Amino acid sequence: MKIKSALISVSDKTGLNKILKELKKYRVQLISSGGTYKKIRSLGYNCEEVSSFTKFPEILDGRVKTLHPKIHSGILYKRDKNSHKRTIKKLNFKSIDLIITNFYPFENSVNLKKNHQEIIENIDIGGPTLVRSAAKNYKDVVVITKIDSYQKFIDELNSFNGKTSLKFREKMARIAFGETASYDSAIFNYFNKSLKKEEIPEILIFKANLIQKLRYGENPHQLGAIYGDRENFGLKKLQGKELSYNNYNDIFACLNLIKTLPKNRGTVIVKHANPSGVSVEFDHLKSYISAINCDPVSAFGGILACNYRVNLKIAKEIIKNYYEVIIADGFDKKSIKLFKNKKNLRLIDSSQTKLENYNKVLSGIKSLLFQTADNKVFNKNNFKVVSKIKPSKHLMEQLIFSFNVCRSVKSNAIVIAQDNKTLGIGSGQPNRLDSCKIAVEKMKRFKQFNEKIPIVAASDAFFPFVDGIENLVQSGISAIIQPYGSIRDREIIKFANDMGIVLIFSKTRHFNH
Amino acid sequence: MKIKSALISVSDKTGLNKILKELKKYRVQLISSGGTYKKIRSLGYNCEEVSSFTKFPEILDGRVKTLHPKIHSGILYKRDKNSHKRTIKKLNFKSIDLIITNFYPFENSVNLKKNHQEIIENIDIGGPTLVRSAAKNYKDVVVITKIDSYQKFIDELNSFNGKTSLKFREKMARIAFGETASYDSAIFNYFNKSLKKEEIPEILIFKANLIQKLRYGENPHQLGAIYGDRENFGLKKLQGKELSYNNYNDIFACLNLIKTLPKNRGTVIVKHANPSGVSVEFDHLKSYISAINCDPVSAFGGILACNYRVNLKIAKEIIKNYYEVIIADGFDKKSIKLFKNKKNLRLIDSSQTKLENYNKVLSGIKSLLFQTADNKVFNKNNFKVVSKIKPSKHLMEQLIFSFNVCRSVKSNAIVIAQDNKTLGIGSGQPNRLDSCKIAVEKMKRFKQFNEKIPIVAASDAFFPFVDGIENLVQSGISAIIQPYGSIRDREIIKFANDMGIVLIFSKTRHFNH
Repeated sequence: MKIKSALISVSDKTGLNKILKELKKYRVQLISSGGTYKKIRSLGYNCEEVSSFTKFPEILDGRVKTLHPKIHSGILYKRDKNSHKRTIKKLNFKSIDLIITNFYPFENSVNLKKNHQEIIENIDIGGPTLVRSAAKNYKDVVVITKIDSYQKFIDELNSFNGKTSLKFREKMARIAFGETASYDSAIFNYFNKSLKKEEIPEILIFKANLIQKLRYGENPHQLGAIYGDRENFGLKKLQGKELSYNNYNDIFACLNLIKTLPKNRGTVIVKHANPSGVSVEFDHLKSYISAINCDPVSAFGGILACNYRVNLKIAKEIIKNYYEVIIADGFDKKSIKLFKNKKNLRLIDSSQTKLENYNKVLSGIKSLLFQTADNKVFNKNNFKVVSKIKPSKHLMEQLIFSFNVCRSVKSNAIVIAQDNKTLGIGSGQPNRLDSCKIAVEKMKRFKQFNEKIPIVAASDAFFPFVDGIENLVQSGISAIIQPYGSIRDREIIKFANDMGIVLIFSKTRHFNH
Repeated sequence: MKIKSALISVSDKTGLNKILKELKKYRVQLISSGGTYKKIRSLGYNCEEVSSFTKFPEILDGRVKTLHPKIHSGILYKRDKNSHKRTIKKLNFKSIDLIITNFYPFENSVNLKKNHQEIIENIDIGGPTLVRSAAKNYKDVVVITKIDSYQKFIDELNSFNGKTSLKFREKMARIAFGETASYDSAIFNYFNKSLKKEEIPEILIFKANLIQKLRYGENPHQLGAIYGDRENFGLKKLQGKELSYNNYNDIFACLNLIKTLPKNRGTVIVKHANPSGVSVEFDHLKSYISAINCDPVSAFGGILACNYRVNLKIAKEIIKNYYEVIIADGFDKKSIKLFKNKKNLRLIDSSQTKLENYNKVLSGIKSLLFQTADNKVFNKNNFKVVSKIKPSKHLMEQLIFSFNVCRSVKSNAIVIAQDNKTLGIGSGQPNRLDSCKIAVEKMKRFKQFNEKIPIVAASDAFFPFVDGIENLVQSGISAIIQPYGSIRDREIIKFANDMGIVLIFSKTRHFNH
């Protein structure tokens, strides 16, 4: 069937002229109202107002315009059903074969307007109803809800001489329901923000736009993609190959740590979603060198993140190692020029990335695990010194540093540190003692410590037995931070005092699986 | 303001009588149509039909009923705005102060009906529009969209003598937009199913109902919850304490492996989201004992999963160790009785859990990483023997077993196995050689191997250098399976041939971070 009439109501008028030109070619009659009507007329096209079409006035400041049986019957009637056709004829209703609509993005109202009442006023009732009616009846009706579908629609019209294919209409209906679902999800999530902090919504709706299809998922036999808010993603890629699923996974692991380290000082190297070295120094070059030296073997092919601006001096040091991705809070011109020679290397400017409060989801089987993010940075006021020996200010700083690194180390984290840098990181183990052994082994292998000053260790969760602590103390660690909670806590405190080390209960933990 | 009139249109008529009784008490006039109208009349209440209210017939087989300005003006007009009140009066329209609606669940149409046209016919246009109008105007109008809100509504009416509080109306509006968003999300996801396998949707919408609020997330300073399809969750808890976030995380790690092992034979023990022991045996007791013996230290406090029915004999062996959760494809009565003594122990029947194809999401920062699941089980037809020595049938089975276990081992997996059981698992490392060393160390520590028969090893991804393989061979491994892809593959093949071991390229990998 040829499209005879179209109802157009667009918030964003981009591309409207182009599509009107095509519709005129096929003699499509136009119906519209408000700003869209004025725009169509000003572009020189004939158009009937909705109120003239329905013979019913626009009332309540435009709250009720298209919610009229003449409009919805014209959209919803089945073109191949005689009883429907008779009804339309009898009531002197007209067919509406095309709906072109886009909504004023609800998120924009939220971002721009502070007044709750104005935001509520912006909720569109008529538009989504037009879209839903047309999408339901896609067998007979075309619904266009996105500007980037305009050209495809024009091509379709021209291919089929003013008609469209069923396949095209079904695709447009799918996109339309995506739009209405997104729209109401945004409203729902806005209302949810008024929930108290300890409340959990009854329905979880996550919606996001495709940012990019990825080459594959974690493995080549899995599809992969990244979704989010395209305009507000916060990661700016300056050069390099396309990012892979695993790159993104590592990048998020990096950012979750680097953004919680003291600003303009931190370096993190991540490999397979675990940090292989972390350092915090005012001297950026020193910070970088300390981070790589913690485990130079693992750093090969890793992801480097700096929460400072990379300059030529550091860049010259960085390119001695092979990285897949370098993330920094800016790069100076000379460093960018240097990195240009490594065409595949991805450079990412994360200066606009903010952690803020965000919710995390992880898929289970037919379910989603939901939690708020672990981006709280703990300080000495959260901690309790339980050993007889009290830490110096410098030692306390080292303990805070090492405990903070635990947040991004997976499954039974042990972080050994000294002088604002990690010396050995134990991760990914099914028991805590094994993680201690790994951390100690790395410390001994790469020998970045100074025997004359104290070495500290942090554990993401409590030690269930004395054995892990014993292993650390025997290896030269003289101050340990860990949450409490073992039934053997007293035994552990006694052991610390017998050994003459500092022991601190962080009172909270940093599990990350 | 008192509620004077209500429009009611419910698919599920549960609890309707109770609410009508209350509305009568406050002399609320009722408007309805179709099945709800008949039900209200049959319960003995007065009610006006929508077509009588609007003075417009129900047309197009009910496709257009409430899409009428008289209905939507009655809902949407602002009760405190004089111009709105004048319009309503002038047009002789009436106020509609309450909407009670629930939709026929779209998922039900999909599950019950095979015919695409019938499913599309079931898309409700009028209902969601009523709900959206009323929710937008929640300042003046009450919208009830869920049966479990009925009692709260009745309490509210009784507390405020036929009125409701603004706070209550706002809460109902929030729930209402959750319902319309869910409804359209379900439609969108249904349309998406017709996409071709290699297509990725432009918008990702995940929606799920709260199954349970959890005590907290991974850590006590994070909120946590599990969402999903309550009716179709597939995990049946038989006894024990509430499951925690970390329990669920471990359970999903277990299931992803146990459900891909040969049926009625597999045992998996998981701790901190990594397996500490895996076995496959016809003899269930032997299967269990092999799994725990791989690393009895780590098994303490772990999660046990069996893809067979647990009987008393195995249960007696199981309770010798402390587990947080036991998952099995059923438990016999005597075993359930035995476990009853351990009140805190969670028992979960997973016989109804199916992996199927599902999509995985993982939150990034202001983004979601999306991938299809890695639940493909590879077999010898996917593999290529590249060494001169060819594996026996038995050896090939061991290689398939060990490679399959890799799917659930995190970050640089090395799985050493023999005789259908794991001997040592290396995990969570930033480089492959370290994982080899850990796997070998565990094998040597717990000594579950038989020196007279070959020991095999699998790697989730390719070895970049010879060193990892060298370490394994020196430790007694005589057959290795790994993907290919290193620029040193030739060197690695030559090394395997020089050493006289079997080397197989799996051609695909099992990254899991």
